[in-house]
Amino acid sequence: MRIVVLAGGIGGARFLRGLKAAAPDADITVIGNTGDDIHLFGLKVCPDLDTVMYTLGGGINEEQGWGRADETFRVKEELAAYGVGPEWFGLGDRDFATHIVRTQMLAAGFPLSAVTEALCARWQPGVRLLPMSDDRIETHVAIEEDGEQRAVHFQEYWVRLRASVDARAVVPVGAEQAKPAPGVLEALGEADVILFPPSNPVVSVGTILAVPGIREAIADAGVPVIGLSPIVGDAPVRGMADKVLAAVGVESTAAAVARHYGSGLLDGWLVDSVDAGAVAEVEAAGIRCRAVPLMMTDLDATAAMAREALALAEEVRA
Amino acid sequence: MRIVVLAGGIGGARFLRGLKAAAPDADITVIGNTGDDIHLFGLKVCPDLDTVMYTLGGGINEEQGWGRADETFRVKEELAAYGVGPEWFGLGDRDFATHIVRTQMLAAGFPLSAVTEALCARWQPGVRLLPMSDDRIETHVAIEEDGEQRAVHFQEYWVRLRASVDARAVVPVGAEQAKPAPGVLEALGEADVILFPPSNPVVSVGTILAVPGIREAIADAGVPVIGLSPIVGDAPVRGMADKVLAAVGVESTAAAVARHYGSGLLDGWLVDSVDAGAVAEVEAAGIRCRAVPLMMTDLDATAAMAREALALAEEVRA
Repeated sequence: MRIVVLAGGIGGARFLRGLKAAAPDADITVIGNTGDDIHLFGLKVCPDLDTVMYTLGGGINEEQGWGRADETFRVKEELAAYGVGPEWFGLGDRDFATHIVRTQMLAAGFPLSAVTEALCARWQPGVRLLPMSDDRIETHVAIEEDGEQRAVHFQEYWVRLRASVDARAVVPVGAEQAKPAPGVLEALGEADVILFPPSNPVVSVGTILAVPGIREAIADAGVPVIGLSPIVGDAPVRGMADKVLAAVGVESTAAAVARHYGSGLLDGWLVDSVDAGAVAEVEAAGIRCRAVPLMMTDLDATAAMAREALALAEEVRA
Repeated sequence: MRIVVLAGGIGGARFLRGLKAAAPDADITVIGNTGDDIHLFGLKVCPDLDTVMYTLGGGINEEQGWGRADETFRVKEELAAYGVGPEWFGLGDRDFATHIVRTQMLAAGFPLSAVTEALCARWQPGVRLLPMSDDRIETHVAIEEDGEQRAVHFQEYWVRLRASVDARAVVPVGAEQAKPAPGVLEALGEADVILFPPSNPVVSVGTILAVPGIREAIADAGVPVIGLSPIVGDAPVRGMADKVLAAVGVESTAAAVARHYGSGLLDGWLVDSVDAGAVAEVEAAGIRCRAVPLMMTDLDATAAMAREALALAEEVRA
């Protein structure tokens, strides 16, 4: 079975770990969000790709969900001693090495997809990890801060500001001119199932869908497209998805997110058991829906979620 | 008193510490060797400039003589885990930050001299540290390895090979087209004394002299030019200077090094007490010479050497 997963960072990575456990023989391709990529200290940092790579490769800081296990921050402390920031972005020493290798390969002319493959040769994530695009796309968020309207990089909004101010707009800068990375459309065309994990529908999955050609390839794939709600009981399971959902005019409910994706894209949708009341609303929108436990508390619970998603795909297919 | 010092790495840096103690009110400009600069992991590394900066700024690993105190090597270990080397070059985590800041500023368009000034704003070395040139110069060494003639970067010769094979030629690649960095010729023109510390006469001081205009500015300065022998008892005090001296056809003796610089450049030369027998030979070459203790065993001994050099300068001037 060929499964394609559109993944953001922590939520996507954890779901993928469950999916691998649930479908150990599946051929899994991950289309990773690169809209949260940022250039820091002259280095190209790809937080979502790295979170997937480290999580599946056994190098992740489990508690935190991002960054490397057993991490230190010597380089960052020294950069701060030079007065060089930003200090709000937590780049650890082990993590720095990844960005140094990536930046060096990009400077040598390799596209991000080839660089990602090279990095994964070390981590052996057990999936094929593709960036959504080799072109530079950076999600910016329009905010009002101290009475001034301005646009900040998504990481600044998310990490420095912790989404504490309203997002007026979320723009994946560069997406319109971008092309899907090599292998992305092919993987979608050959997929048996396409999954949207409980990742942020705006700044993770939404950014991937903003790359011209990807949304169309999913809609045209002719295979079940199944999503898992990142909203449980009207609040994001983790992160601050409600802030960016508001910016695109979507309520923070499991049903509203399903309608946001729409029946043109989504065939099935899993909501948490506490949102069982939303099933009818989602089905009324033409999307098959089931209520099941959606908290990724451990690997078993996550694998069970993946199995439910695959079961719903079979139900859709039948 | 305005003193200009041509400095390599460890020997130059330690001498400078003694000079600052010996002449606390002097206005000291250091022209630093950049021929040992190397690009590693996409970063610009300037070992000699950094050794001077860290030593005078209190950040040096005292035992080792280079690199940062209390250093760790997490980034390097991770790079090695990616299969990215070279492993033979010891870049520590704290040190990495310096190279990241430097590389970022160079990429932003600042010349190396401005970058060095910015880095020194943190370290406050108490001297004005100028790279010999803002242009890229890299010392390469022609060797025979496994029966093949090839040229290696100086760092590869020095650090990887530990000068274990004969150097057939030492070439400061790029020097001919280089210009002295802003301030270098001005400092030489305004100097009261010019000093050659006990640095490597070929790959440290020699490389600085290879930048067109610097040798002439020293010869034309009309002020005492005093050197201290890096060779004591026919052997280098530290490092493997004999290997590169042989490549330029100079014997590893205190007198031969003085003659190599020549009376056209050098007015005075200090040899170690054990080389008192060389004084007559040096003076016969038209260079005033004194035999004094030249082992930089501690700050007092080093300050005493600096005082001897300044005393010899006064003697030459009188």
